[in-house]
Amino acid sequence: MPNSLSAIIEILGTIAFTISGVYSAMQKKLDILGVIIIGFVTAIGGGTIRDVLIGHTPVTWMQDLTGPVVILATAIITILFKKRIGNFKVTLFLFDALGLGLFTVIGLQKGLAAGLHPGVCVALGTITGCFGGVCRDILLNHIPVLFHKEIYATACIIGGVVYFMLINTCGKSITEMVAVIVICSIRIIAYRKNWKLPAL
Amino acid sequence: MPNSLSAIIEILGTIAFTISGVYSAMQKKLDILGVIIIGFVTAIGGGTIRDVLIGHTPVTWMQDLTGPVVILATAIITILFKKRIGNFKVTLFLFDALGLGLFTVIGLQKGLAAGLHPGVCVALGTITGCFGGVCRDILLNHIPVLFHKEIYATACIIGGVVYFMLINTCGKSITEMVAVIVICSIRIIAYRKNWKLPAL
Amino acid sequence: MPNSLSAIIEILGTIAFTISGVYSAMQKKLDILGVIIIGFVTAIGGGTIRDVLIGHTPVTWMQDLTGPVVILATAIITILFKKRIGNFKVTLFLFDALGLGLFTVIGLQKGLAAGLHPGVCVALGTITGCFGGVCRDILLNHIPVLFHKEIYATACIIGGVVYFMLINTCGKSITEMVAVIVICSIRIIAYRKNWKLPAL
Repeated sequence: MPNSLSAIIEILGTIAFTISGVYSAMQKKLDILGVIIIGFVTAIGGGTIRDVLIGHTPVTWMQDLTGPVVILATAIITILFKKRIGNFKVTLFLFDALGLGLFTVIGLQKGLAAGLHPGVCVALGTITGCFGGVCRDILLNHIPVLFHKEIYATACIIGGVVYFMLINTCGKSITEMVAVIVICSIRIIAYRKNWKLPAL
Repeated sequence: MPNSLSAIIEILGTIAFTISGVYSAMQKKLDILGVIIIGFVTAIGGGTIRDVLIGHTPVTWMQDLTGPVVILATAIITILFKKRIGNFKVTLFLFDALGLGLFTVIGLQKGLAAGLHPGVCVALGTITGCFGGVCRDILLNHIPVLFHKEIYATACIIGGVVYFMLINTCGKSITEMVAVIVICSIRIIAYRKNWKLPAL
Repeated sequence: MPNSLSAIIEILGTIAFTISGVYSAMQKKLDILGVIIIGFVTAIGGGTIRDVLIGHTPVTWMQDLTGPVVILATAIITILFKKRIGNFKVTLFLFDALGLGLFTVIGLQKGLAAGLHPGVCVALGTITGCFGGVCRDILLNHIPVLFHKEIYATACIIGGVVYFMLINTCGKSITEMVAVIVICSIRIIAYRKNWKLPAL
């Protein structure tokens, strides 16, 4: 995938993740700083856990300030225009799905760069995509949505497997793009059709 | 302790910890992937926190895939045969106690290898043995069992102290074995006799 | 700030943070070891998260045992004399505010020493000062107080900004002292006047 495209998608994904955190926090009547902190944690939590687990420190958001700046701006705008932003639910959901796909692929690549086994890379991709939401839910005192509602981690795992099936034959750019599209599509279709994994 | 024996106990402990996570998660009606993730976190959480705190990264389960493979297989088998596995409660409890002892001793040794003070090593051993369960309880939105029920961390701390009392006179193998037995026995006896620490 | 003064304030802050953890844990009827562990986590949680994020491992409390010894002694004394310590509420609140200021400044300095951007240093300072309490609340199954009650992180952020406004002109000692006093004063005044951030 061209770097510029991937950078744009990453920013859109960060925006969507931040907004999801801000909205969840506002429902719990947190104060303004609490809401912003939850926005941050939702957007950077997954990548931060990944970085800590592989020893890539100081963690990414400390070294590249694009993330924090985008998050802070997004959180403030969301708080100011909360009602209007509610009108863009569909757009936000699409950003979120795109972000999920791209974050997962970024996690996969960091795992590969650290020389880890493909299975571990898939786990790292899933952590990068999903664990920001897990941190959000823990801080807000919920059981993480990831574990009992909607198809989320499943999409990341399938996308990760597709990635490793293609990477040796299709080249890096195409493989990345296909993996992002697979994850994004599964997430969207599952949401539309209300697919769920069986509960136990 | 001979390496092969220690490897077998570690696998038995991993199995027991995974099953404890899977059972707890099933009681909360999580979906199948949520249940598997909680199984993972319960089994590897303690060692992962230890590795992150001492800077031993990428963390152990990323470098040696025995753990993840055992956990995945255990989680799936437990889900498929959940009723029958309930019949092995006593066996599982014994594995769990053995695993607690061995995980604690592994944590102690990693602390020693990192050149840390004996008191810190005892803390690391306790974290390795107990904090997988703490992660499980946080994700399932409980106050960790560790803090208010049953003797658990106490056994690890006593075992750690015994370890440092013997290590200079008895040699590594014997010390390890005694420490595992002490932890395991305290855990079993405390459970049988329903011992509890005083609540405050 | 003279090193000896800063060491004394750090110990007073550690004592206050430990007592706050121990008190919260006692209200949840945890057992004695659970109470001590929550005391530890409250006092060292913020610094530990900071160290892990910047890759400063083994984390500080493993390398300098002053912290753990002070915490253990404080926790035991608090448990033994819980009623009497309740009489020192005002003193404890002042220690807590002082500790908040100093912990924040320590976090700032560790960020600077790691070559990080001032904005990231302010975040690290806030994490050092506040996230021990966040860990305490997560373990006790509350939504962190930080997010919805009292001015806490706000004081750290303002203090951090003041620090960077002064550091190039006033010299290290004066800047540190002013930042600690600013944070401490905001915390105390906000508490007295019952200031809150707007809820959303």
